[in-house]
Amino acid sequence: MRQIGSAEILQMEQRFRTTFINSISGFKSLQMVGTINSKGNTNLALFSSIFHVGANPPYLGMVVRPDGNEHETIQNIMFNNAYTLNNVISNKYKEAHQTSARYLAGESEFAACGFTEEYVDGFAAPFVKESKIKIGLEFKEYLPFLLNKTKIVIGEIKHILIDDNIIGEDGFVDLNQSNTVTSAGLDAYYTTNLLARLSYAKPGKQVEELNVNKKEH
Amino acid sequence: MRQIGSAEILQMEQRFRTTFINSISGFKSLQMVGTINSKGNTNLALFSSIFHVGANPPYLGMVVRPDGNEHETIQNIMFNNAYTLNNVISNKYKEAHQTSARYLAGESEFAACGFTEEYVDGFAAPFVKESKIKIGLEFKEYLPFLLNKTKIVIGEIKHILIDDNIIGEDGFVDLNQSNTVTSAGLDAYYTTNLLARLSYAKPGKQVEELNVNKKEH
Repeated sequence: MRQIGSAEILQMEQRFRTTFINSISGFKSLQMVGTINSKGNTNLALFSSIFHVGANPPYLGMVVRPDGNEHETIQNIMFNNAYTLNNVISNKYKEAHQTSARYLAGESEFAACGFTEEYVDGFAAPFVKESKIKIGLEFKEYLPFLLNKTKIVIGEIKHILIDDNIIGEDGFVDLNQSNTVTSAGLDAYYTTNLLARLSYAKPGKQVEELNVNKKEH
Repeated sequence: MRQIGSAEILQMEQRFRTTFINSISGFKSLQMVGTINSKGNTNLALFSSIFHVGANPPYLGMVVRPDGNEHETIQNIMFNNAYTLNNVISNKYKEAHQTSARYLAGESEFAACGFTEEYVDGFAAPFVKESKIKIGLEFKEYLPFLLNKTKIVIGEIKHILIDDNIIGEDGFVDLNQSNTVTSAGLDAYYTTNLLARLSYAKPGKQVEELNVNKKEH
């Protein structure tokens, strides 16, 4: 096993380092973020750092970099206080990747990349019709880092569009059954295989594989 | 497709809602965090919200909840300014899940769960010998949310322990080849299958599958 220190990391060729550092931290929480601007133009962009902040009230966070390609998404979120997260499914992952191209202002990634807008009454952000798990959020908090230009957007979940049959008896949503894709680095996409769900861990007790039934319909 | 609104979410039975909201946001960035306290006792804990903050300098963030089980990890990070991230591999995922049990203060999850401590000279946090990708971080920033008690810890990467043969020619680390596991919800673990790495997206251009060779050794 090789040991790589600070000095070696800082001396790496820039693109090599970007790819290396982006891929070592683990698989990512991938979502397409749907927004709409003041002129009514829609935007769809890929974000890969979505995280759980709380269940009651239900909050989700996402890491954003306002100085680059993500500027339009952030501006739209601030304007409407609304945005959507839409899961990337395995038969649309190339189209999802294509949303990261730098389209001209006013050209919607929905039409350009082959996704269909879908709306919920009274909610000012477009969902992705082709996605299987869709979350509508109301903007709540914008947190800057001191270290660099990265910021965090926190939203409260207001709407969820989901197939009822992927919600288990205990509330667990089977991402694998809905063909949700995960990503690594800047450009790698993966499907998944469930190893198991495990019982609540207690000291001195062997963890067991859970077998929670799907709801009957 | 079913539409679930705010009112229905807030009325869900508490455990159902926790499981539901924790699992809808996508696959998670799973890491075991290794620390050591002022008495020299080691701690190993599972965190599932690790995110990329920057490549130069190399920063990683992680979401923490200081009022619960994670209090010891955070205290240790603050005391030593040092912590490690260690990937969860598929033949050790049950042992990794077991580290989330509430062990007594002073009882190390390393020994209790079957992991081996490994050290790098001059760095005050234990790595996990059994992991394949290990990252040593220096604590940099602690960011509180206004909305709830969740906080964010940011660190700078100081050491990386990794098998040279999983680093590609362009710096890409193949998490799948190192048997890295991802998670969903509070208790589900998954292996992955690479769909493809995709070329840099440009408007009007079809994305292509990348074929970057592994380094020759």
